[in-house]
Amino acid sequence: MYSFRNDYSEGAHPKVLQALTETNLEQTRGYGLDPRCQKAADLIRTLCAAPEADVHFLMGGTQTNLLVIEALLKPYQAVIAAHTGHINVHETGAIEGTGRKVIAIPSPDGKVTPAMVESVPELHSDEHQVVPAMVYVSNTTEIGTVYSKAELEALRTCCDKHGLLLFLDGARLGSAMACGDITLPDLAALTDAFYIGGTKNGALFGEALIFSKPREDFRWYMKRRGGMLAKGRLLGVQFQALLEDDTFLNSARHANRLAIRLREGISALGYPMPVTSPSNQQFPILPNETVKQLQTMGYEFEIDRAVDPGHTQIRLVTSWATPEDAVEKFLQNLSACAK
Amino acid sequence: MYSFRNDYSEGAHPKVLQALTETNLEQTRGYGLDPRCQKAADLIRTLCAAPEADVHFLMGGTQTNLLVIEALLKPYQAVIAAHTGHINVHETGAIEGTGRKVIAIPSPDGKVTPAMVESVPELHSDEHQVVPAMVYVSNTTEIGTVYSKAELEALRTCCDKHGLLLFLDGARLGSAMACGDITLPDLAALTDAFYIGGTKNGALFGEALIFSKPREDFRWYMKRRGGMLAKGRLLGVQFQALLEDDTFLNSARHANRLAIRLREGISALGYPMPVTSPSNQQFPILPNETVKQLQTMGYEFEIDRAVDPGHTQIRLVTSWATPEDAVEKFLQNLSACAK
Amino acid sequence: MYSFRNDYSEGAHPKVLQALTETNLEQTRGYGLDPRCQKAADLIRTLCAAPEADVHFLMGGTQTNLLVIEALLKPYQAVIAAHTGHINVHETGAIEGTGRKVIAIPSPDGKVTPAMVESVPELHSDEHQVVPAMVYVSNTTEIGTVYSKAELEALRTCCDKHGLLLFLDGARLGSAMACGDITLPDLAALTDAFYIGGTKNGALFGEALIFSKPREDFRWYMKRRGGMLAKGRLLGVQFQALLEDDTFLNSARHANRLAIRLREGISALGYPMPVTSPSNQQFPILPNETVKQLQTMGYEFEIDRAVDPGHTQIRLVTSWATPEDAVEKFLQNLSACAK
Amino acid sequence: MYSFRNDYSEGAHPKVLQALTETNLEQTRGYGLDPRCQKAADLIRTLCAAPEADVHFLMGGTQTNLLVIEALLKPYQAVIAAHTGHINVHETGAIEGTGRKVIAIPSPDGKVTPAMVESVPELHSDEHQVVPAMVYVSNTTEIGTVYSKAELEALRTCCDKHGLLLFLDGARLGSAMACGDITLPDLAALTDAFYIGGTKNGALFGEALIFSKPREDFRWYMKRRGGMLAKGRLLGVQFQALLEDDTFLNSARHANRLAIRLREGISALGYPMPVTSPSNQQFPILPNETVKQLQTMGYEFEIDRAVDPGHTQIRLVTSWATPEDAVEKFLQNLSACAK
Repeated sequence: MYSFRNDYSEGAHPKVLQALTETNLEQTRGYGLDPRCQKAADLIRTLCAAPEADVHFLMGGTQTNLLVIEALLKPYQAVIAAHTGHINVHETGAIEGTGRKVIAIPSPDGKVTPAMVESVPELHSDEHQVVPAMVYVSNTTEIGTVYSKAELEALRTCCDKHGLLLFLDGARLGSAMACGDITLPDLAALTDAFYIGGTKNGALFGEALIFSKPREDFRWYMKRRGGMLAKGRLLGVQFQALLEDDTFLNSARHANRLAIRLREGISALGYPMPVTSPSNQQFPILPNETVKQLQTMGYEFEIDRAVDPGHTQIRLVTSWATPEDAVEKFLQNLSACAK
Repeated sequence: MYSFRNDYSEGAHPKVLQALTETNLEQTRGYGLDPRCQKAADLIRTLCAAPEADVHFLMGGTQTNLLVIEALLKPYQAVIAAHTGHINVHETGAIEGTGRKVIAIPSPDGKVTPAMVESVPELHSDEHQVVPAMVYVSNTTEIGTVYSKAELEALRTCCDKHGLLLFLDGARLGSAMACGDITLPDLAALTDAFYIGGTKNGALFGEALIFSKPREDFRWYMKRRGGMLAKGRLLGVQFQALLEDDTFLNSARHANRLAIRLREGISALGYPMPVTSPSNQQFPILPNETVKQLQTMGYEFEIDRAVDPGHTQIRLVTSWATPEDAVEKFLQNLSACAK
Repeated sequence: MYSFRNDYSEGAHPKVLQALTETNLEQTRGYGLDPRCQKAADLIRTLCAAPEADVHFLMGGTQTNLLVIEALLKPYQAVIAAHTGHINVHETGAIEGTGRKVIAIPSPDGKVTPAMVESVPELHSDEHQVVPAMVYVSNTTEIGTVYSKAELEALRTCCDKHGLLLFLDGARLGSAMACGDITLPDLAALTDAFYIGGTKNGALFGEALIFSKPREDFRWYMKRRGGMLAKGRLLGVQFQALLEDDTFLNSARHANRLAIRLREGISALGYPMPVTSPSNQQFPILPNETVKQLQTMGYEFEIDRAVDPGHTQIRLVTSWATPEDAVEKFLQNLSACAK
Repeated sequence: MYSFRNDYSEGAHPKVLQALTETNLEQTRGYGLDPRCQKAADLIRTLCAAPEADVHFLMGGTQTNLLVIEALLKPYQAVIAAHTGHINVHETGAIEGTGRKVIAIPSPDGKVTPAMVESVPELHSDEHQVVPAMVYVSNTTEIGTVYSKAELEALRTCCDKHGLLLFLDGARLGSAMACGDITLPDLAALTDAFYIGGTKNGALFGEALIFSKPREDFRWYMKRRGGMLAKGRLLGVQFQALLEDDTFLNSARHANRLAIRLREGISALGYPMPVTSPSNQQFPILPNETVKQLQTMGYEFEIDRAVDPGHTQIRLVTSWATPEDAVEKFLQNLSACAK
């Protein structure tokens, strides 16, 4: 059986592990001031066609989100996010923990649109209200949807019009890039900050944060929140291993392909999948009985929500590590369940 | 002409000013540890029929809200409020400034109901989400509506069921008590903390905060946020002046009566007033042209929102200081406006 | 008998109370956006010979200190203060409550000198240490000493050399100006921010904060920490009353004169006064027995510290309100105590 | 040549790397709720003879320090530390970043004693001062000194007397245990919280935090500050590899032995070493010229401080990874330097 619970259920892509092993006894300075990190940062700047970009390596998504928002916003400024946004619902108030407010707006598909941004009442407020100063988006979103380049361009235009920064959470950026039309140079050009998620696409851990302009004091923010890894070079080594060839994108393509295979197989069995996700998270609606049968067989996955008294929406996630036959076997087993 | 902009446009009720003048040269200890504050606190405990209650005097509503929430909640706990709640939209992120999240729920009439509380997804969450630990209500609400005793009792039951604290913002409590069925003993019995708003009902400034149980360390929280007045006795003197006789309630009754007179007069002129407020804030919808005419005459009031391209909802607020004839003259002037 | 406990034991100077009474029924906008505050701010700019200065009115010293430091420093920046500085020892961690570190340096006389600033190891640090960005001084200091103009100029030069802001806590600025050589134009020219303390020199409450350069967003900081008074005009009215003529300085001169009379009288009785204070706080060392006798007579004052098993340093504070004969009687009573 | 800059210049002990490789494709739940973390926590409870202890795995020292202090102290409470304490000088204000004050006391040898604790003026303070509530110590200290069991017992007695918690930063606990008389059961019995540092003794990263009593909500604190690793099992795997046999202690013994060899060799050459360190950090004083020669040869180390115009104190650190001959060669090279 198999766990489709998440894309961080296993360790690292073998190439990453190999790089860590090969460099293990090298001596370097700590805290990311080593040649490995510098090389990885240079590589990212090249891949982004952004020679001025400021690159930092962090250990996880929540840490990255809170640090970017704390560093870019003043205390009374706020960040606009979809109601389903990770910073709004799955970070235990980490953004508020820095003193900043998240302005949550309802979103049917997990994405933020210019119209949604412009609906925020605080956009033209006085000193009795927070000042919206940033739009936060995730790509892929928390429900697997993906921004097109045109959508991001429209958001950028909207942000410019209202003096807002645009920050893109790329915890699952590999999956988004593998199925969408957005490139790293697009992201560097359209956002003020974004990150390339390693944790969910082959690294042991790590997020590569890119500021489009230099942020001279970001390392002080990092250290102050405990976000500076002593053996920082571990992050440089991993990102170099992932990005110096096609490992990063190929890993995401593999995950997406198996997710689409799941989607098609489940749909073919007649189960509804109302969330239109082209990426590595899929949300089928199954009878409660079927959910239990799958769990009894040993399958693991997240329960997303109760749809009605008899049906549950579950979440299936694939990754670089998901074996092809785990997917096929799952479809066979699902097919065998009483409908 | 007259300003209906707010209920804090003037100074203090004459009786309050007189008390401040009479006690001006008394020497007392600072920071609220004086006989005047002790006497006012005793009086409030008596009026609340709550001999165990812990009473503190603060300088304003935002200060009180942020201190209560900071003192009663752990950093990862959250407070549930109506989307229109003062702490959600009119305090420049003061609650988030203490590191706590406000969970805002849509409310048609500014009130929070048990069903709304129970709709909060985070109620049964894990360590990736904030933990709701308090319900915040305002009475009167930000749009002038008033909780009945039965409504507060139902909220208390709901809070007990889910292990939530209940905190009532009484910035306009006078107005609520003067037109509703809730008494101070009810409030002390039904909430974990509430306050009696002085600023908007006759004091120069001041809110009297009542914790139903002793909070031994609250003064440390006060001092740390700059919320402890050096000449603290000014607060004790004012609350004693307001509460030792009917001054507080009579002031609110006066304000409410004039507000209802405004309501009836405006309705009689055919203008819609969809917000059903029995208290000292009224929200008529007027043609834009009429709004401009009133402003040109010298009337002042807040613009609440554009209802449609031709109509605006305004807010009219009365207070202990509003003269009877200011209201009558306003109605005459409104009547004279082209419709 | 009399309380020499503090300079905020009474209410307001009669002229202040009169101004509050006379303007009591004026209607104005709230939150400091009223003509009274504007007039007082204009007056202060004129008195400071600083037409560009940004003036804000706040309710107390701790509130002012924390807001200035939060608004002017980034989260990882730190403020240097004397170990005895108010922000270091008497504000319950209010500065740390904004996330900023206070770097305390030992000071024999409560003052900060350039040499002390330059002894701070963090001055040339990396991202593992806070970045000193401000020097905080009080004038008068917490032990009544007073900066000369030359001393402040030397500090300014030192701050410029190291890229530090200079912030002067003027909770007792009246007393300092009444006995030193510093003027308001000096303060506006030499500091980045300073305040004129009203609470301890004749106001019911209030501190007038002056930024030498415009701080466009300071009102957002104020509101977010609950530091914006609804009836803000009360602050404007009071500062106008104090500053439109010699009331402010004369009040301080009166307090200083009586303090020096205490100093001379106590010294003449042979009691040591090692703290050389020219201002309204005096620190005699008395036998424990004498301290008790004075307390038994009904005198009130702070106990500063135990000097040795038999002697105690106490603090005596005078104010605008201290009657001449209260001082004379105290000296007579002290003289009558067994030595 | 060799870098004696730090004990985190290399990757992981081979046994740790092997364990990570062997478990790489296991599927587990995230965030530390996996069997590997549970097993490592059980092992630690056994080694500590503390079946009730609460064990959490974190990624680094600053993160651990700020989380423990934030979780155990109320906002107005403070932590007492030696002036040289890591939280006071090398964490960019991370503790203040949680709103808590660090009360720094001068210490000649990096250790805190009961007498130093009792010298803190705030121990008996009122609401105008922070409330000391915790003593923070590091073992080894920042300058390599080590607490004896008797010293820790005396601190515990002092803490109990004053109602203080005792927290021990064990970033270099291995080195301390390898040369001192303190055991894990001692630490679990004598402290309220301590941690076993992995980063500086063979792990890629990781600190194992032990609360002597259950802390039910600590995971909420962790998540809120971005301190919860998605692939949490990496931490469990590493600590199991280090602690299931003698790897942890033997690694520290190796580092200490080479440090003492450095100490003896350098002393034999006549260079002073005033810091009496029995652990893996050594602080020789060398002529500036000698320092430059060593650097020119390619040696790396931290400059601790300028002792006088001609001499510099440097820091040499050894680790599990330091080769024996790197030490011998360094001594030979130092011996060859002009004195």
